[in-house]
Formats: sequence, structure tokens, C-alpha cells
Amino acid sequence: MFLGAERRTGRGPAVASIDPRTDTPLEPGYGSGTAEDVARACELAEQAAPGFRATSPERRATFLERIADRIEALGEELIVRAVAESGLPAVRVTGERDRTTGQLRLLAAEVRYGAWAEVRIDRPLPDRVPEPRPDLRERHIGIGPVAVFGASDFPLGFSVAGGDSTAALAAGCPVVLKAHSAHLGTSELVGSAVAAAVRESELPAGVFSLLFGSGAELGRALVADPRIRAVGFTGSRAGGEALMRTAAARPEPVPVYAEMSSVNPVFLLPGALRDRSAALVEGFIGALTAGAGQFRTRPGLLAAVNGPELAEFLAAAGRAVSAQIARTVQTRAFHDAYERAAAALAAVEDVREIAAGQPGEGANTCAPRLFTVPAETFLGRPELQDQPFGAAATVVTCRDTAQLTEVARALRGQLTATVHHGTGDRDTAAALLPLLETRAGRVLYDGWPTAVEVSHAMVHGGPYPATSDVRTTSVGTLSVRRFLRPVCYQDVPADFLPADVSDGNPRDLPRRLDGAREHR
Amino acid sequence: MFLGAERRTGRGPAVASIDPRTDTPLEPGYGSGTAEDVARACELAEQAAPGFRATSPERRATFLERIADRIEALGEELIVRAVAESGLPAVRVTGERDRTTGQLRLLAAEVRYGAWAEVRIDRPLPDRVPEPRPDLRERHIGIGPVAVFGASDFPLGFSVAGGDSTAALAAGCPVVLKAHSAHLGTSELVGSAVAAAVRESELPAGVFSLLFGSGAELGRALVADPRIRAVGFTGSRAGGEALMRTAAARPEPVPVYAEMSSVNPVFLLPGALRDRSAALVEGFIGALTAGAGQFRTRPGLLAAVNGPELAEFLAAAGRAVSAQIARTVQTRAFHDAYERAAAALAAVEDVREIAAGQPGEGANTCAPRLFTVPAETFLGRPELQDQPFGAAATVVTCRDTAQLTEVARALRGQLTATVHHGTGDRDTAAALLPLLETRAGRVLYDGWPTAVEVSHAMVHGGPYPATSDVRTTSVGTLSVRRFLRPVCYQDVPADFLPADVSDGNPRDLPRRLDGAREHR
Repeated sequence: MFLGAERRTGRGPAVASIDPRTDTPLEPGYGSGTAEDVARACELAEQAAPGFRATSPERRATFLERIADRIEALGEELIVRAVAESGLPAVRVTGERDRTTGQLRLLAAEVRYGAWAEVRIDRPLPDRVPEPRPDLRERHIGIGPVAVFGASDFPLGFSVAGGDSTAALAAGCPVVLKAHSAHLGTSELVGSAVAAAVRESELPAGVFSLLFGSGAELGRALVADPRIRAVGFTGSRAGGEALMRTAAARPEPVPVYAEMSSVNPVFLLPGALRDRSAALVEGFIGALTAGAGQFRTRPGLLAAVNGPELAEFLAAAGRAVSAQIARTVQTRAFHDAYERAAAALAAVEDVREIAAGQPGEGANTCAPRLFTVPAETFLGRPELQDQPFGAAATVVTCRDTAQLTEVARALRGQLTATVHHGTGDRDTAAALLPLLETRAGRVLYDGWPTAVEVSHAMVHGGPYPATSDVRTTSVGTLSVRRFLRPVCYQDVPADFLPADVSDGNPRDLPRRLDGAREHR
Repeated sequence: MFLGAERRTGRGPAVASIDPRTDTPLEPGYGSGTAEDVARACELAEQAAPGFRATSPERRATFLERIADRIEALGEELIVRAVAESGLPAVRVTGERDRTTGQLRLLAAEVRYGAWAEVRIDRPLPDRVPEPRPDLRERHIGIGPVAVFGASDFPLGFSVAGGDSTAALAAGCPVVLKAHSAHLGTSELVGSAVAAAVRESELPAGVFSLLFGSGAELGRALVADPRIRAVGFTGSRAGGEALMRTAAARPEPVPVYAEMSSVNPVFLLPGALRDRSAALVEGFIGALTAGAGQFRTRPGLLAAVNGPELAEFLAAAGRAVSAQIARTVQTRAFHDAYERAAAALAAVEDVREIAAGQPGEGANTCAPRLFTVPAETFLGRPELQDQPFGAAATVVTCRDTAQLTEVARALRGQLTATVHHGTGDRDTAAALLPLLETRAGRVLYDGWPTAVEVSHAMVHGGPYPATSDVRTTSVGTLSVRRFLRPVCYQDVPADFLPADVSDGNPRDLPRRLDGAREHR
């Protein structure tokens, strides 16, 4: 573990990660953290918060870039360990590493640009009647220490130096990270990179701590600690809701950003099925099976209108699914949950399993599966909106486009919603867009939702239960907003004013002066 | 009541407002709403939401300006009724009316300016390897129908067309308003102005509904309605927390913006007491007794270092408080709660009541009261952070400036925190600022916190329990943010793209293109 950038062995029972390809434990065991370790990490984070918050954007940006450099310097050791702990192919792990360092560098650039501070200055009007207007200056500051939970399905991208940590550090918030027990060695390596960057940047040690542990107790203690001011989590709906309850029950409730559950509906409109059925099958299978189906943005639910074109699509998609070979998923828990959920789905009346992939080699393999269900059944049974987490998809077959729209209207919150349109679909597509933007954080046309670009315009978020907070994104530069809060300074003398809101704009931030853009 | 801009008499038991000056009911009685009325208002709001959300900024701005015009057109009738229902002087009610219409017009200007949409466009990179970048366009849209609770203490400013409603309408969200039973006639009048503006602007009727009722049941049904997407509330901590629980227990939890409880600590540093004691007494008494002490930003807690200067300040402040005459507060509930809390405070060991004002004329009058408590006692008894809501203040007497800082560190979340500094206070003041900005939404130097400017840089918010959401403000142009959420459009063809994110920027919004400010 790292307590305030200092390496420490937890005194709790040792935990070990498992190679999911062989179901064997990986050396070494890691001593898990205790309640005292949680308290110590939070205390260090609180001590570090004022100094870290006050760092200049330049210094914080350089810190993020150093983390990226240090992660890259880990080289092959990191890739090998992450492959062993996740069962993912090296090419995917390498890609995820590059995405993670790219994210750190993009957020470093955003910290430098400074729009996140949202500085606004209203000049005083001493002669206004009946009351003068005071000098008012607003900026956004870090919310305070943030608890981040490493995700099970992204050993790098949503873990120690992943999206939540990067956004919190960018905002000037210390991070106390609870590593996922599926990737302890990977977490230790990345943790060492972050700790080294903290030292190299001469930041207060409590800016970063990393805790190991299994079970829910450590996490609960972390979220309940009064020094923690916000929580980032990616995982199951049950896990996210448990953290939300803990956070809401605190004497001082704090925001929880939990990314939980999305089936990413895809609407295949009649014209699209007519115009380009083969391309749709290819795109669908690629998106469904990417990463063995373990993307939270996988297309788990399709909807289309009955007819010969849909029959042809289903036949071709079924053949493609049947040809797939089962692949190792990242944890035994994923494997068991997938098989259980897929079996339960197959047992539902009117749900038909039309194809399943071939058995694979090694432990914890899951085969893709394809189901259909009539829209009447889907609309009457809300539990069918839960789909197995993995490479399974259900096609909701509709009578007509009106029923397709009804399916869209019935949807719970989603990370993404997609429309494939073709000749003659103009009106249906136009009617779906305003509906789907109320159901999802990202709306796609004629594409597949699996890839999540790290950029300025990305929204990786959505209404409940896709996430716990529809106002936010956990990917992209807008993700920093989650860990900021506004503060106003009224008639504070120049001597005491933070540089962000000082006259002359010494930090060169984009600002609004009396509501208008300030000249830079 | 108004159900979708249509006038309707509630079929529930009639409720009436009370003139607090005489404790007599005011004509007429208003039939209270039923569960069906709540459901109908929410249904109309949901129906109105897509059309209202899609209106152009220009159209929404004009709508807000029409509400302001219609409120002004109510003329004396509104002032007379609000005076009768609140017991406030006409000059205060007129000022509050002007503040309310000014707020509507400022937010109209902000809607036109368009920064709230936060549009970001990332251009496609079709040739990027290994994967092309899609076309990504982000904007913020209204979160959906909003439930707003009229506050008891601002019959106009935080009521039917007050801060929460104005921000929600500015964001393109329909509003279902639950009027406070203290101001039914005022609410009906302002409701008629909003309904007229809805019609005049040819907006869907469900954009605005107004419900009457007493007791918690109607409000609970409103917050529990699945069509409601966010809640605005100003009132007691118990009331706010009840709404938070209801909202969190929904199958789909929604954000609650509750402004609850703040005592607005003021630190009188030694130099300030030496330099300008008389001015401090005058400013303090003015801020404490403004609006009979019924501002949520009143200075209810002071802290200063023991010594002859503090003794002199307390003596002078005590004389000033003793000279005050008790004034009618807005409701009997306020009166009773104030007297109960003040008596309980006076009974605490080591708390000393050093002055109280004179009895006043009429019903429901409350006299200002001034207490002292040693810092040791204050630090050991967190319940002393709750102060009576009204013109009572407690001065925490400290051994030295170190203990003063300890008091600051112990504070719960506040709307405001103030430092008065003078000769020799530089270091203490500089140390307090970074501490106080973590405890309050607004930090003031050498002023008094009572007045809340409606402007761009204002933050009327703060950490729990001042508000339920430290990330927000309920006053100023930034208040619109509470009712917005981001949506990303990926590869959506030009035909289907909303104007906000279209090429050529037809709505002339400030946008970021590949992260940089787009030329306008």
C-alpha cells in the first residue's frame, strides 16, 4: 500500500489476485488495510488538501504529466502483470495504458487552459442606489479529499491513475484509492508511479494514498470518513448503491459518482436493415465481443421492426455469434454472474436464445449469446432491461416503428443510445433523437457505442441507473467538474485574494468580467 | 391553483394564509391540491418538457422577461397582499419584488448569452490511427420537470417566480410549484403572471403549474413523482432533509437543492475591534435586525478574542440590542421556534444572555437577543452551532487568535463566513481565508453578509448543512447549472443535430472547438 506516498504493508489478512486464465493465485500476497490505515490515509489527505488546492495550474499539470511519464517508464513489467491479473491480451492492455497516459496529458492541458476554474468577476458599483454593489469574485476550487474505487474491468483506465483519480487530482483534490483486489500487482505498480510523481513534484505526501483490501468493509469505512468529500466508483449497481447509501447516511452527505449499469440500446431502423444488413452484423458482432463483452458500453439491447429484413439480420448475426469462441473474462465473479444471468434470461417465457458461441480454452471463459424477445413481453417486464454483463445481447422485436418508439420511451437511463438509419427512416430517426437524449448521456447515429473517446465533448454518463449523477461525465475534460465547487469572495482585499481571481489575471485564466468574456 | 396554466380550485380542504401582525386568517380560503392534482401537474410538465427544452434561447429569454413585466403589472395589489401575508413593511416587499423581476431579466440575458449550454465540438479525425475519431458534439440540456417549494421567508424572491423557478425555466425545465401556505394570495397573483406569460409566449401549458396545500404530504407526493427530475427548496433543515430522503428513496433518485441552515460566522479580529469598534457595532446591529432577523444570511455567530476591546464592543452592542423593539416575524411558526430556541440557548451552562430588545406591538413579535459563550464550551458542544433563526446572535469569546482559528476549523458548512480585520491582523486574516473558503460558499472581508447580490459572481450556497449540494448556488446566473445535464452527440448527421451544436453556430453560442474557444 501507499500511505501518503510512503510504502507500507497492510497488517490485515493478505489478499492475492487471481490469474483468470488458470484460476490460480498470483504471487505476492498483499497485506490488506485496516480501519486505522483508512483513517491515516484520510488524515494525510486532509492535511495535504489546502496546499494542493493552492498549487498553480502549471504545477498541477506538470504533476499529471509526470504520472504519465512514470507509468510509461514501468514498461513491460506493467503490461505483463496486468495481462496476468486480467486475462486480457497484451495489445488491449497496452492500448489501455496509452489511453490512460493520454488522459493524464489531456487533463494536464485542460488544467493549464483553466476553463475549469470558471472565474467570474463582478466589479463594484459604489454609487449604485439604493445599495452599492460590492466587489464579487467567483472561482471553482477542489471539493476536498476524494475516495476512488478501482474498477474490476479496467485495470488501468478506471483504476489507480484512471479517469476518476486523474479528474480529482486535476481539480486539486487529494485521492485515497481503494485498489480492486483483481489487480493488486498492477495497482501497486501504478501506485508507485503516482507516489514517485508526488515526490518529484514536491507535493504534500497525502495527495495520494493507495489501500488494499477485499470485501466491502474497507470501502465503507473510507466513504464514511468525514474527511472524504466525494466518491468515484465504477462497478455493479449493487456496489454503487451501497456506496450511495453510506454517503447519504453520513452526518454530512457527500456526492457519489457511481457508474453502474447500462445496456446501451441500439435501434436498427427498417431502412438501415434494408440498406446495409451485412455491415450492421459485422459492426454489431465487433462491438458486442470487443474485450470479451466486458465494456460498459457494449450493445446489450437491440430493437428492430419485424419483417424479412430483421429475419435476415438475425440469421446472419446468429451465425456470427455461433462461430465465436468463448473467451476468458477478467474475474471468476464476472464469469459466474454472466452465466447465471444468461441462463435466467433464457428461461424467461417468450425469450428465445437464437445463438451461442463455442466453448473456449482455459478457465472462466464466456461465450457470446444472442436472444430475442417480443416488444410486448419486454414492455411488460421491466426486469428484462437488466442484461447479462458480457457478450450477450437481446433483440427486442417490434410490430412497427410506433412500438419501437414505445420501447425507447420505456428505457431506463443509459450511458449510450444508438440509432442506425437508412432510406426512408428520416421521420422515425428525427422522432427518436429528442427521446433518446433524455435517456442517455451519449447519442450515436450509424455507429457502435463501445469506444469512448477521451476528449472535450465526450459525455460518459447518463440518467440513473447508468450513473448515480446525470449531471456529470466520468470521461473527458468535463469530468473535472465533478470534484469542484464554487466560492465567492466579497470585498476581499487584493492582499488576500487568490491569484485565480486577482486583478491583472496573473494565471491567465479565461474569465468573465461583469458577465462578458474578459479580454485575454 | 394553476394546472398547466389553467386556473383550478383544489378539491382538498381549504387553507388560508394568516396575517402575522394580527394572527387572523386572510380571505379567501384556497382549496388544497390532491394526489391527483400532483399527478396531473407532473403529467402536463412531462408533456411540455421536450417542446420547452427545444425552444430557442431568444424565446426562453423573452418568456422570462414577460413574467417580469406581468409581475410589475400586478402593481399595488401584489404589494398589499404580500404585506398582509408576511407582515413585512411595504418598502421591503417592493424591494423584493424589484429584486425578483431583476433576477428574471438578468437570467433572460444569461439565457441569450448562452454560456450555460457549454457547447463543445470535437471535429472528426477520420485518418487517425489506430482508430479514427468520430464527430463529437456536446451541449447541456434541461434536466426535465422540476419541483419547486415556495419558501416561507421570501414571499416573492424565493417563491413562485423566485430563484429556483427562474433558474429552472431558464434551463428549459417545466416547473411544478408548491406554494407556501404562508403566502397563498401572493402566490396566486404571481402564478397568474407566470401563467399569462406562458400563454403570451405560446409555450406548452404544462411549463408551469402551481399547487396549494398544507402539511408535508403533497410535497412528498410531488418529490416522489417519477416525472420530476430535480427539486428546489429553501427552508428548515428538517424539511430539506425529509425531501432528500424522499428523493433518495425513489427508484430513480434525483438531485435535491435544499438551502437549509447557516449561522454565517463573523470573525472580529483584534485590530478591527481596536480600529473601528463603533462602526462594527452599527454594521452588526443593522445586519442582525434587517428583515426582523429573518435572512438566512444574518450574522448569527461572532467570534473574537477576549480583552478590553471586545468588552467595549459587547457593551455597545448590548446597549444597541436593548434599544431595539421587537418586530413581527413572518409566521407564527417562526415566532414560536425562535422563542423556544432562544430560551434553550439561554439555559445552556456558560452561555450568557447579555442583552434583549424591548417588547413590540402586535402579534408574533420577536426581540433581538445577544449571547456570549466561551470558546471552550462552544468547541465542546456542537449543538451550539445551531442558533435561533431570527435576530439572535452569539459571540464566541476566545483566548487568543489561535483559538479563534480553532473555532473556524470546527465550523459546519455555511452560506457565508466573514472576517473583519484591522491593523496588525494581516497574518491571522491570511490564515483564515483558506480555511473559511472550505466552510462557506461566500467569504467576505470587512462587510456584513446579509445582502445577497443577484449577479454573475454570486455564490449563495455552501457545504452541508447550509445546503444539500456544495457544488451549486441558488442565486445568480450560475444557479441555472443546477437544472442542466450534458449530452454528447456522436456522428449525428447535420439533419438531426440540434441547432445548439450545428455547424455555423446558428444560435451564436460561446463554444469550444477541439478544446479552444471558437471564434464568434
